[in-house]
Amino acid sequence: MNIEDIKDPSFLKQLNNSELQELSDDIRQFLMKSVSKTGGHFSSNLGIVELTVAMHYVFDAPKDKIIFDVGHQSYVHKILTGRAKDFKRLRQFGSISGFQKRAESEYDTWEAGHSSTALSGAIGIATARDLNHEDFNVICVVGDAAIMSGESFEALNYLGSSKHKVIVILNDNNMSISKNVGGLSTILSDFRTSRQYKDAKDNYRSFTSRSKTGQRLYDATRRMKEIVKDRMLADSPFKQFNMDYLGPVDGHNMDELIRALETAKELDHSVILHVLTVKGKGYPLAEQDKLGVYHGVPPFDLSKGIMPPVHKKHQTWSQCISTYIELLMKDHQDICVITPAMMSGSALTDIFRHYPDRSFDVGIAEEHAMTFAAGLSVGGKFPFLSVYSSFSQRAYDQLNHDIARMDLPCLIGIDRCDLVGNDGSTHHGVFDISYMLAIPHVIIMAPHNQYEAERMINTAYQNHDHPYVIRYSKNKIHKHVKHASETLEVGTWDAIIYDSKNTVSVVVYGDRVKVAKNIVETHHLPVNVINARFIKPMDEKMLDLIRNTHIITYEHVMLAGSLASEMALYYERKEMNTKMTMMAIGDHYVTHGDVPTLLKVEGLAPEDLLETIKEVLNEERKS
Amino acid sequence: MNIEDIKDPSFLKQLNNSELQELSDDIRQFLMKSVSKTGGHFSSNLGIVELTVAMHYVFDAPKDKIIFDVGHQSYVHKILTGRAKDFKRLRQFGSISGFQKRAESEYDTWEAGHSSTALSGAIGIATARDLNHEDFNVICVVGDAAIMSGESFEALNYLGSSKHKVIVILNDNNMSISKNVGGLSTILSDFRTSRQYKDAKDNYRSFTSRSKTGQRLYDATRRMKEIVKDRMLADSPFKQFNMDYLGPVDGHNMDELIRALETAKELDHSVILHVLTVKGKGYPLAEQDKLGVYHGVPPFDLSKGIMPPVHKKHQTWSQCISTYIELLMKDHQDICVITPAMMSGSALTDIFRHYPDRSFDVGIAEEHAMTFAAGLSVGGKFPFLSVYSSFSQRAYDQLNHDIARMDLPCLIGIDRCDLVGNDGSTHHGVFDISYMLAIPHVIIMAPHNQYEAERMINTAYQNHDHPYVIRYSKNKIHKHVKHASETLEVGTWDAIIYDSKNTVSVVVYGDRVKVAKNIVETHHLPVNVINARFIKPMDEKMLDLIRNTHIITYEHVMLAGSLASEMALYYERKEMNTKMTMMAIGDHYVTHGDVPTLLKVEGLAPEDLLETIKEVLNEERKS
Repeated sequence: MNIEDIKDPSFLKQLNNSELQELSDDIRQFLMKSVSKTGGHFSSNLGIVELTVAMHYVFDAPKDKIIFDVGHQSYVHKILTGRAKDFKRLRQFGSISGFQKRAESEYDTWEAGHSSTALSGAIGIATARDLNHEDFNVICVVGDAAIMSGESFEALNYLGSSKHKVIVILNDNNMSISKNVGGLSTILSDFRTSRQYKDAKDNYRSFTSRSKTGQRLYDATRRMKEIVKDRMLADSPFKQFNMDYLGPVDGHNMDELIRALETAKELDHSVILHVLTVKGKGYPLAEQDKLGVYHGVPPFDLSKGIMPPVHKKHQTWSQCISTYIELLMKDHQDICVITPAMMSGSALTDIFRHYPDRSFDVGIAEEHAMTFAAGLSVGGKFPFLSVYSSFSQRAYDQLNHDIARMDLPCLIGIDRCDLVGNDGSTHHGVFDISYMLAIPHVIIMAPHNQYEAERMINTAYQNHDHPYVIRYSKNKIHKHVKHASETLEVGTWDAIIYDSKNTVSVVVYGDRVKVAKNIVETHHLPVNVINARFIKPMDEKMLDLIRNTHIITYEHVMLAGSLASEMALYYERKEMNTKMTMMAIGDHYVTHGDVPTLLKVEGLAPEDLLETIKEVLNEERKS
Repeated sequence: MNIEDIKDPSFLKQLNNSELQELSDDIRQFLMKSVSKTGGHFSSNLGIVELTVAMHYVFDAPKDKIIFDVGHQSYVHKILTGRAKDFKRLRQFGSISGFQKRAESEYDTWEAGHSSTALSGAIGIATARDLNHEDFNVICVVGDAAIMSGESFEALNYLGSSKHKVIVILNDNNMSISKNVGGLSTILSDFRTSRQYKDAKDNYRSFTSRSKTGQRLYDATRRMKEIVKDRMLADSPFKQFNMDYLGPVDGHNMDELIRALETAKELDHSVILHVLTVKGKGYPLAEQDKLGVYHGVPPFDLSKGIMPPVHKKHQTWSQCISTYIELLMKDHQDICVITPAMMSGSALTDIFRHYPDRSFDVGIAEEHAMTFAAGLSVGGKFPFLSVYSSFSQRAYDQLNHDIARMDLPCLIGIDRCDLVGNDGSTHHGVFDISYMLAIPHVIIMAPHNQYEAERMINTAYQNHDHPYVIRYSKNKIHKHVKHASETLEVGTWDAIIYDSKNTVSVVVYGDRVKVAKNIVETHHLPVNVINARFIKPMDEKMLDLIRNTHIITYEHVMLAGSLASEMALYYERKEMNTKMTMMAIGDHYVTHGDVPTLLKVEGLAPEDLLETIKEVLNEERKS
């Protein structure tokens, strides 16, 4: 059938299991073609095709609520709920998101983007349902890495004593994003290969084939119940949470999936249904991928696979930072590196290979990651914790209460800052400065090129006096072969372009230094360009120097709690009547789309800066 | 012996077990007398006397690192490390803290105040130790409620696959703070009373009595090993985390404790030692306390116990809010209440008694609490989540990513705002405004009396359009018998005192409205007093009205990200050259002490406001 003709999932009810499998194959082909053209989340969606088809066959959405943890694996769900035609412009401005979105479809009850929230949300919805005397199923699909994150644990533990039924589907591909971490992961691994698993599986098959639904199954002989209890529950890797358990089930076998889902549906209490899936299923390169290269993909040629980009002159910020950290690690045994499951994304693969003893992937566990870094610092090490800006929000209290309050020397790399583009509102790194400004002891740095980044890292490492934060975007920068060995004086800004006769100053940091410099130089504008490389503490001498010029701040973060807001506070306290024009994100969430488009929408594109400078210059000339 | 004469724990090594027990009894008497006089954490410290004595007997601090999760149960540790004489001024300004503090003693390796960080910290310290080729023990004491919080789960899961040894002592009093919640709690409960527990206990006793240390024990016959493995590990409630396990042990039996600790010490890998203690041990009223009344106590008469305060005219803010929420719940079935383990502290006991189906104690799980609230809201309920300001920091991302981004109607009560006093730097509620200002959709309110609070609650409930935050302190306020049924217009401030001839305006919110009003009235000052009851959005009409007066802002939160900073930003953007004098907390953590003393130290006492007003008035008269 033509996948784009699917209006809603009701047609599934008419199909038999082999037709459902056929449909799954078609959807998989559609996904491969479409996502390889547009880019997007690839492997996770290929792995969940049969499971999603089976869920929409067994359950009745939108009455029944199907919630995907994170949501990047909801493409098949989007296809089955009438959105296949929008995949041509997947994750582009004005088109469908790469995640579930309530505004996009009545089939999307919940939204996310960060991991491990779905269980808590599902429990809330199920609780509301029962209080409202409504009757529908709440199904929550969680990956094996996301279920080992703190909030999922809290929710699972809570669910173990809650009377409100949620069907938890553990989508276990043994490799969410990159690799799994931790004791429970080991237990799950052992479980998958153990005798118990095989026993359970055989046993499960034998009994589900005898009775159509689990209710009948539970009404069956006492002996059957005992078998269920002994085999399914007693051997469960989630026994400790007091959770009932079914599985494991082959996530690419439609018969098994449907029987298992029907059993879970008929139970009168919460259950974890353990489904084994193969990430990247159907595309061999993705199936074999152990590094997460096919997790989120750029557009690529399906026949060739993703080629490692060859950039002699350019590098990503993550690569720039990692390269220099690795260089330092060679001579400095005290430097350790921590990532919460973002080894590949943060370009740490080489460090982990070369310094396995001092490299720590803690899994999707930002809270533990931050406090673990605190412990390493207390123990005399110098930890470098690399974390995406929007995920760092998970560790706000740990940064404040543990790292900053104890004033522990360390370096925190805040990756994927500013607008990230197609992932949208959940992923933009636009809050980090606002939530960090009020935290004492923390020094916040934003480099504009490789050498400055290296000097900042040197500063943090050599000063060894406070927690330092270095923030950078997902952009590419020029790659230098040489490295910078100097340090910077904390709290000093750099006047990139300065003339005491200029009446206008542009204050920028990070990627916008180059943008501002180019504009001013290209258009021969009589304007200062100040690199505010330390966002905290600010350079008060420089602030005083430019106080009589009209200041334009140009940032890609929330205006509230921006550098501009700190500058306004400074000038107000000093009773300096400065003129400021502030370019930053207003009080709203920024949607998805490519970054240049989003910047235009927000009035923050380079052209907007040029326009603003010209306006301000005109204004100053008149006055 | 005289407890105050203890210099360090080295003398313990000379004592035999019955002398150690005698010492424990003396310490318990000291604690009861001392803490009932000064106030502080009572029950948790009475419960941990023998365990702490045994730890300091078996281990060699400060070489060995003894880390208490939260740290409120570290009083015995403080006594044994030479700080008993300071207990007369426990938690007072300039004296010892109620928590572990690195600056206070070399025996305090770690500090906290929030729960569930110790495991991550301990793992970091142990990892650093091994990388540094050092040789010491890391012992981490965690309560049974704190171990069920997300960050603890993340750390336990990580520890289950880490090679760096940490001794985890589960201090299980089955009632941390109030009651335990969740599946693991049920499992632990069952475990304590099960046949396995008794078997394990008997078995444990029999084998530890045979060999002095665990090493010998592990070197013993294969059969012995099998017993350990089968009985200790297989039955463990922490099997799922791949964690080795010893216990349970009677936490008030010195012989058992010492044998168990020695076993844990000799093992070459991480282990959870499960110790059963009685919270409040030795003081019957505290032992029987199920509500947490004796968790943190004010000064009280030991012979009478804590008397419920009789205040006909006054109430705490928590009581004020809870009373009105309960009143609304009677007529509005959609209102639900959530607390993360603070039922008593947040004055929710009556609500939980009267509306058990709509009241949810989720345990120490702020992340789950916030996203669970999001789920309830999606499900059509109106959740009221009550959470202490400093603990709300744990749920920053959930407030941002889940509640605010989906713009879900709900009310979040931020309790214990502003300076809280004796608990100190970890507990002051001074960051909430700064981290919330940049979050879109959120409306931030701060009431100054009961009626205003009720109008704010009505506003949030009836508008049903956004997430509303209402923040209030631990202070007492006047109690009115009647209630307010009106709503407020969002973003409107209230000119409590206003005269267009006044050249000075004081802008305040919350408890400081009354303070400012009293000062201005008592001293007949020609000064406006503006109640900025909506911190976000601000009242722009009022801002414009007072722009030509000299504005004094008076806040008890961090200056960065304060209302003052938002006002400065507003005036700067509007190119209004306003004069502002800002009173708020500077860029540092505030220590412990009673609130009036701390306010004086910070220059934020009512006298400081009076002084500032006078200075500003003089300045304005001159100009």
